[in-house]
Amino acid sequence: MKAARIALRTAAPLVASGPPARREVERFARFSPSPLSMQQFLDFGSVNGCERTSFAFLRQELPVRLANILKEIDLLPVQLQSTPSVTLVKSWYMQSLMDLVEFHQKSPDDHRVLSDFIDSLVTVRNRHHNVVPTMAQGIIEYKDTFKVDPVMNQNIQYFLDRFYMNRISFRMLINQHALLFDGNANLMHPQQIGSIDPCCDVVAVVHDAFESSRMLCEQYYLTSPELKLTQVNGKAPGQAIHIVYVPSHLFHMLFELFKNAMRATIEYQESLSSLSPIEVTVVLGNEDLTIKISDRGGGVPVRQVERLFSYMYSTAPRPVMDDSHSAPLAGFGYGLPISRLYAKYFQGNLNLYSISGYGIDAVIYLKALSTDSIEKLPVFNKSAYKHYQATSEADDWCVPSKEPKNLAKQSIAI
Amino acid sequence: MKAARIALRTAAPLVASGPPARREVERFARFSPSPLSMQQFLDFGSVNGCERTSFAFLRQELPVRLANILKEIDLLPVQLQSTPSVTLVKSWYMQSLMDLVEFHQKSPDDHRVLSDFIDSLVTVRNRHHNVVPTMAQGIIEYKDTFKVDPVMNQNIQYFLDRFYMNRISFRMLINQHALLFDGNANLMHPQQIGSIDPCCDVVAVVHDAFESSRMLCEQYYLTSPELKLTQVNGKAPGQAIHIVYVPSHLFHMLFELFKNAMRATIEYQESLSSLSPIEVTVVLGNEDLTIKISDRGGGVPVRQVERLFSYMYSTAPRPVMDDSHSAPLAGFGYGLPISRLYAKYFQGNLNLYSISGYGIDAVIYLKALSTDSIEKLPVFNKSAYKHYQATSEADDWCVPSKEPKNLAKQSIAI
Repeated sequence: MKAARIALRTAAPLVASGPPARREVERFARFSPSPLSMQQFLDFGSVNGCERTSFAFLRQELPVRLANILKEIDLLPVQLQSTPSVTLVKSWYMQSLMDLVEFHQKSPDDHRVLSDFIDSLVTVRNRHHNVVPTMAQGIIEYKDTFKVDPVMNQNIQYFLDRFYMNRISFRMLINQHALLFDGNANLMHPQQIGSIDPCCDVVAVVHDAFESSRMLCEQYYLTSPELKLTQVNGKAPGQAIHIVYVPSHLFHMLFELFKNAMRATIEYQESLSSLSPIEVTVVLGNEDLTIKISDRGGGVPVRQVERLFSYMYSTAPRPVMDDSHSAPLAGFGYGLPISRLYAKYFQGNLNLYSISGYGIDAVIYLKALSTDSIEKLPVFNKSAYKHYQATSEADDWCVPSKEPKNLAKQSIAI
Repeated sequence: MKAARIALRTAAPLVASGPPARREVERFARFSPSPLSMQQFLDFGSVNGCERTSFAFLRQELPVRLANILKEIDLLPVQLQSTPSVTLVKSWYMQSLMDLVEFHQKSPDDHRVLSDFIDSLVTVRNRHHNVVPTMAQGIIEYKDTFKVDPVMNQNIQYFLDRFYMNRISFRMLINQHALLFDGNANLMHPQQIGSIDPCCDVVAVVHDAFESSRMLCEQYYLTSPELKLTQVNGKAPGQAIHIVYVPSHLFHMLFELFKNAMRATIEYQESLSSLSPIEVTVVLGNEDLTIKISDRGGGVPVRQVERLFSYMYSTAPRPVMDDSHSAPLAGFGYGLPISRLYAKYFQGNLNLYSISGYGIDAVIYLKALSTDSIEKLPVFNKSAYKHYQATSEADDWCVPSKEPKNLAKQSIAI
């Protein structure tokens, strides 16, 4: 019965593009998103956690987050907005906003309302399943037709970092509510509060991600480097390192970095009789949990490092628009920039330090204290608006670096 | 006789603040500085190098560089400009500009003119000797009187990075001309072209800087860590690593980083029976010459790293206004930001990667190819002008990091 309702909703035509929908966007975009702290996420899952409170929060907060990012989609170049892919993505966002706004008329005290709300959240989550490849497809359609200049590249980088961060936060909110209140406890991970592990064993996740990457690597190359792990617990020397975190997010980042490190090591050292290990250092300090992953895969010139995080200059194969997974160890696609967003989502970071001719150190910084772990969310305001108005300007330094700045000079000269 | 002339000039009252001087500033600020490549620097010192060509270039280029940065001094907050220290610095710049402009009337074919020009360059260099501590004093005077907000801090950081970079370039031009054409070959370093070594032995400079730092360290702490060096020549495996570079600049950066690494190691490991070595990795790649300096000195929280490069938030002792040197191993003063400028001057960089609870990796990136080593110079234009007009704006992300962004929020709220 429940499944049938979901299917029906999913199949319903998307009609949320008219003036009433636009009015709702304007209405909710006037609010700023309310970032949650890790503690607030945990509170929703505690014995005092209340489904009605969560419902009341989400029926307001989810439309606010959708509306805020919809306002930024409106600021993209018209030629990009009007690609079939971006038009489709936008329609999903409008429809989901309208689906959620419906619940503003309904009472949290009615159990059926609460149950319908969970169904709607699942519908929204499913509708948005292909947002990343669809948006990527839109960028490719645009790139194929129009000349991409550095200013354009900068604007799209700015937008997509915010758009995908918004999506990470949006999915997090939906997942927490759905996991906590759908009536089934998390049987796989009984100690987790939804997707959050209040006692996440960082080194265990490192091993998991390493082994998963290693399996792919063995399939592909028939060999793989070893792991050499050092851990330092600066707060409780000798003890295992635990933080409050979302293990799936940490796994996502580590898996991406291990795949890159293994591929670089194997391809750079193919003439050697044995492979250098991937060295991992996990350190818990007073403020930071730091994970450094060092490979001897030859690195890249420092000039090219930022490009590894670029959505526009991605050299990965074009995304496939179905559910099949892309080739293993396929290299730098959207994997790195999105991993960096996961790190930043709870106020951390992810950096690459390359030594050309030697290897790369990849460093993940997370907050050691759950009180510092607060959602980092884009907000649509005047400052954000200004970013999209940036135009090609003279550099305030005489000599621009060769790439990609020279492109800027060329495109100005043309 | 020469010395007497120099003394006289140095003692002459500074009168270059009236309308004629302002007119010259406006005149030369209309030109952009002309960055020189490492190759152009070498050409001036080759057998075909011509003193008259160098004279003709410098009598134009030095006023252009002075005028460009004078225009930016004019954009500083009035209260900072009117401190005695900044007023003094500005008068030096105006006077030097006027001293050099005099040579526009004179013939390069007159040997006395060429000789007078060298004297004037030396006078200018001596006059500007104390620019860094005097400007720092101005900042302190301003900080003591006015509340410094984050926008102000950002503007001053922007200005001082440009101001000190301009000074590095200015001194480089003067030194090259003075060293090449004063009639005395460089007896200390016969292979050098002025201050440039066309075959700079990077590992030798690493050893020099390490030993110098170690001597200070021994004096101060009665102990010092060992050096553990790895070198990889990716272009000519097994051979020594050479680049075209200014050894004194490289020494300056390395000495600063070694002092910091030694101090951190000793203070963090005082309870241990032996000290971890400072690990240095020197790698020559196709594009980059990379030097990584790793210590186990406990690091700093990642949130504080950018502050180590801040002129405003410098925690070093107040600069002493005479010629005595400040305390050895005194910690992070202007040493780090100015070292980073030296690295950037020829299109390199200097970064710190901290693992809180473990240690710091400091990485110097230089260009491996002299054709990529081109002066990086600030230019006064509309883009630069705009930077000084920046005002306190709402953040385009909801949650600012705790420091220093929270300060911004507070000062906005007040």
